[in-house]
Amino acid sequence: MAQKNRWKLIIEYDGTPFVGWQRQDNGPSVQQAIEEAIYAFSGEDVRLHAAGRTDAGVHACAQVAHFDLEKETDVKTVRDAINAHLRPQPVAVLEAEKVDEAFHARFSAAKRYYLYRILCRKAPPVLRAHHVWHVHTDLDTAKMWDAAQLLVGKHDFTSFRAAECQAESPVKTLDRLDVIEDGDEIKIYAEARSFLHHQVRNMVGTLKLVGEGKWTSEKVREALEARDRSAAGPTAPACGLYLVKVDY
Amino acid sequence: MAQKNRWKLIIEYDGTPFVGWQRQDNGPSVQQAIEEAIYAFSGEDVRLHAAGRTDAGVHACAQVAHFDLEKETDVKTVRDAINAHLRPQPVAVLEAEKVDEAFHARFSAAKRYYLYRILCRKAPPVLRAHHVWHVHTDLDTAKMWDAAQLLVGKHDFTSFRAAECQAESPVKTLDRLDVIEDGDEIKIYAEARSFLHHQVRNMVGTLKLVGEGKWTSEKVREALEARDRSAAGPTAPACGLYLVKVDY
Repeated sequence: MAQKNRWKLIIEYDGTPFVGWQRQDNGPSVQQAIEEAIYAFSGEDVRLHAAGRTDAGVHACAQVAHFDLEKETDVKTVRDAINAHLRPQPVAVLEAEKVDEAFHARFSAAKRYYLYRILCRKAPPVLRAHHVWHVHTDLDTAKMWDAAQLLVGKHDFTSFRAAECQAESPVKTLDRLDVIEDGDEIKIYAEARSFLHHQVRNMVGTLKLVGEGKWTSEKVREALEARDRSAAGPTAPACGLYLVKVDY
Repeated sequence: MAQKNRWKLIIEYDGTPFVGWQRQDNGPSVQQAIEEAIYAFSGEDVRLHAAGRTDAGVHACAQVAHFDLEKETDVKTVRDAINAHLRPQPVAVLEAEKVDEAFHARFSAAKRYYLYRILCRKAPPVLRAHHVWHVHTDLDTAKMWDAAQLLVGKHDFTSFRAAECQAESPVKTLDRLDVIEDGDEIKIYAEARSFLHHQVRNMVGTLKLVGEGKWTSEKVREALEARDRSAAGPTAPACGLYLVKVDY
């Protein structure tokens, strides 16, 4: 068997038309799109491993994935050939890099950065359709920020964990959860080594209740302490979420 | 004949699927979409007048238009009813306002603000597809800024004017032409009381030549002074251009 090279890719995608990162029987996935593009240029049937298995409709500015390739080739060819075969699908390889075989996009990740975008106004977000959560009322971002700080740190995040989450432990360390006004949008920045399934969207859905004045910070604290999914707020829509960076 | 009220609308749209602002025989226009939505809620066949008749593919964050309506109604109803009938087209009324009959969206405009977005990288702009000009090489923004300043002020802009331009005079006063790096994009801000047809796109297409090092600032000055369209650079694509504001 030939020696293989491990390749790391940095990938941008619009999650709107996909069932998510991961291959599934019920529709097109980002993983399948890229694996097929790699096959088209190399003739090799590879398996891609990603840092974050984003859900249907979730976007990525810089998802990271790796795969092993027998074919000897260079950085430029890998990037440009995959991109050529991905067209017209909304997925693009921003960078390709040859890495050590010890590198694993998922298990070597030291920190993941997510951004959640909310647009508060009456009119629909036509220039940003499918790219923000459209909320029809104003939200109090100062109160949302205060409540968000209660979630920062090491906690049992069971209340913010999807039922289908496969993580071994519900205990995670949230390094940052910022709520920032940026023009006509509210941007929520979440950073941690790793997240539970739906954790960011469940935190955002809960913070929105605080922004509306329906919940107090104290209720968010109680929801966290309850360790019960039904104690926290609803899951915010996928379309506002972006995987923006992964550190190794 | 009933007394009519004049309404001012602030409108956002994604220009991608349209033949432009203005009604045309060859496809859907933004004007037609909104006029039909107004008819659907009011039963009145109105004529919309816009501040800027944007070309096919050009976007607007805040186009301004006016129309006259017999029906007595309120601000919220006008905005929400038009938006309801516009769906699923990528056009939305951000604000509606009852104005004096002396107001004219086009002729009363005191200043128009345009933004042009360029993304310089090898990979295609999938999250910003149809929303930026994708340029495959890096551009020298400092040189572009220097050259842009030669165009600021009162000039005969014949060299940057489309052949089909209907303006009476090619002399315009350009108040601002800034070239600013913003993350991975180059943003060009153009402000003037009014512009010639294709003026912003022709200036951007010329500045790109400077950014690539193909043209010097001196050549831009010569192009301006030539008063000849063939002396300036090519027309930049429509998809990078946004009408962002109109002052009255």
